[in-house]
Amino acid sequence: MQLLETTFWSTGGSRHGMAERLGFSKSKANALIAGLVDQGLLAESGLQKSSGGRRAENLQLNVALGVLIGIDIGATSIDVAVLGPDLAVLAHHSEPADVRDGPGVLLARVRTLMRELLTRCGSSAKEVIGIGIGVPGPVNFENGQLVNPPLMPAWDSFSIRDYLREDYAAPVFVDNDVNLMALGELWRLQRSLSNFLVIKVGTGIGCGIVCHGEVYRGAAGAAGDVGHICVDQEGPRCHCGNLGCVEVMAAGPAITRMAVAAAEAGQSTALAECLRAHGTIEALDVGHASREGDAAANAIIQRAGSLIGQMLASVVNFFNPSHVFIGGGITRIGPLFLASVRQSVYQRSLALSTRHLEIQYTPLGTQGGLIGAGVLAMQETLRVRGVAP
Amino acid sequence: MQLLETTFWSTGGSRHGMAERLGFSKSKANALIAGLVDQGLLAESGLQKSSGGRRAENLQLNVALGVLIGIDIGATSIDVAVLGPDLAVLAHHSEPADVRDGPGVLLARVRTLMRELLTRCGSSAKEVIGIGIGVPGPVNFENGQLVNPPLMPAWDSFSIRDYLREDYAAPVFVDNDVNLMALGELWRLQRSLSNFLVIKVGTGIGCGIVCHGEVYRGAAGAAGDVGHICVDQEGPRCHCGNLGCVEVMAAGPAITRMAVAAAEAGQSTALAECLRAHGTIEALDVGHASREGDAAANAIIQRAGSLIGQMLASVVNFFNPSHVFIGGGITRIGPLFLASVRQSVYQRSLALSTRHLEIQYTPLGTQGGLIGAGVLAMQETLRVRGVAP
Repeated sequence: MQLLETTFWSTGGSRHGMAERLGFSKSKANALIAGLVDQGLLAESGLQKSSGGRRAENLQLNVALGVLIGIDIGATSIDVAVLGPDLAVLAHHSEPADVRDGPGVLLARVRTLMRELLTRCGSSAKEVIGIGIGVPGPVNFENGQLVNPPLMPAWDSFSIRDYLREDYAAPVFVDNDVNLMALGELWRLQRSLSNFLVIKVGTGIGCGIVCHGEVYRGAAGAAGDVGHICVDQEGPRCHCGNLGCVEVMAAGPAITRMAVAAAEAGQSTALAECLRAHGTIEALDVGHASREGDAAANAIIQRAGSLIGQMLASVVNFFNPSHVFIGGGITRIGPLFLASVRQSVYQRSLALSTRHLEIQYTPLGTQGGLIGAGVLAMQETLRVRGVAP
Repeated sequence: MQLLETTFWSTGGSRHGMAERLGFSKSKANALIAGLVDQGLLAESGLQKSSGGRRAENLQLNVALGVLIGIDIGATSIDVAVLGPDLAVLAHHSEPADVRDGPGVLLARVRTLMRELLTRCGSSAKEVIGIGIGVPGPVNFENGQLVNPPLMPAWDSFSIRDYLREDYAAPVFVDNDVNLMALGELWRLQRSLSNFLVIKVGTGIGCGIVCHGEVYRGAAGAAGDVGHICVDQEGPRCHCGNLGCVEVMAAGPAITRMAVAAAEAGQSTALAECLRAHGTIEALDVGHASREGDAAANAIIQRAGSLIGQMLASVVNFFNPSHVFIGGGITRIGPLFLASVRQSVYQRSLALSTRHLEIQYTPLGTQGGLIGAGVLAMQETLRVRGVAP
């Protein structure tokens, strides 16, 4: 078990490295590995580069174990993927969707996509060993149900697990989308960082927290709800009822609102043209205009970055993370946004908290949520099922 | 080791309970316990109430192991105590002090107090098995040195460990004062809560964080520096250089400033009298006036509570703790302060984060830092020295 988990988290290592990591003797490690290889759980593939002597074999989970399904439900999109036990993406489909349509409509579509993607890989429902799903709201991790999700009220207490259990024998694990982005980065990093944050900026703003090397979900599963941190006591009213939440002032819809206002006020020809052509202005369009030097677009991006940086400064003073990774739709807006966030954080946080702080876009990019869903599926499947395949 | 630590954290438990907690069989637990009793590390004392059959003995660390010293250095006070291995306070002394006088002056006084208190208990320097010290600034926990402490610049990089090593062979452990308050509460709770905060409001404002059942210190030891979270973008300038930090607007000195202003503006006879009599007004005086129904004093307390609640709302949205314990000098100001904090947090935080959130004064009260220093000393001594006494 421990050895399988370690293999999964180290994405391929040598026998020798594995033994060292677990504090086993070489002979104990060899015996254990031989047993797991016999059971078809581990495989030795390829050869690791070695500086001399016998070459060490590269260990990985046996691809014959089966496949994982990762699902990332965003506020405005669905992503479904079939993944190998090593999280290699075997098939992937992404399409727009509106989460407010409710679980009946969305999960029916997810179910169809799962079937199609499995067929495309030549796999069957029986070969699925674990399913991981991320959803854009607070989740009770124990029962896998959403709790009072502000963006998707129809999903409250709906059992995603029971719904998918009809087609699949594999266990289904549900978590908040940003927690899964954090879990995905933790896996990518092979747990080399212990304390970091992933901020997702899209329709809303959320935060995944890694603390002491594990995803932290809080006392009621609500940790990371940074979108409703106040950045302006006299700001506009948010859907949560309070004034000046960072989400209502700086997330995707706020950027659209500022851009439409700038276009209508005649402050930008580029934005006005976009509004005429498409009837609205997306954050991505503001990014395009900014890269072409549009002053109004630049000002909007700087304002959003500065407000998010102001929220982050509070969080950084409190949590003192080593890294903050920013992900979600906002990352496609360009480098000016990141620069504005950084400036705002470094100006407002204490020197000791920021001395070694790195702020960057998420390395896994748009696949972060999907990879995280795969990590959840594999990790929890290993825990739930024990050694037996 | 594990058994000694478990005994320490459970503050006395039966053999049977101990075996269950560690997942040992009864016979394995009995053999281990017998060995530790023989070595003089564990003692069986008193009889636990039992619902029938043989009575289970109560296990505890042997008091003959030696004594601990706990030291709590605040911005304006020193507390030193001699404690038993079960953290019973054997002798305690508290006196005013100014941390800005520097480590030479303060630690010389601490050394004298340690000697006096040991004599009072009939103990010698040789019997001291561990020393724990809390200081009001950020600490590099590995080397026990303060890092850029804003309130006490003369302490920067000073080695408290080396200083005390001259008199004592016992290991010395240094941590931030609020981290130790959190550790003290964790011990009092016998680790029954996993995710909670301790906020200290005195000359400054700091926060101790317990996450996944352990004190969390952050990537650079700066976690919990909530005093410099901004609550008013146009507020007064703080010593850190930024505007509107909660510390400059709501900690002890801010309460004094508001009270003096109210007295001088003729808004309160009670506060004006206090100012005439003492030349200043302490937070405690504002508390007295408030309890006698003084409207200006009430308004000041409500303002401070509301600002601290506003900062806490951000932290609660991010961290979703089960409990927030408020400690430090402010607790003596009375119940109106706590009510104002609660109102402000419940109004500004999301329903899910606050549904089961408890906000109360620290149960350990003014002894929290001292008890925490004792817990640190005992816990780290057990870890460093292993089983041998």
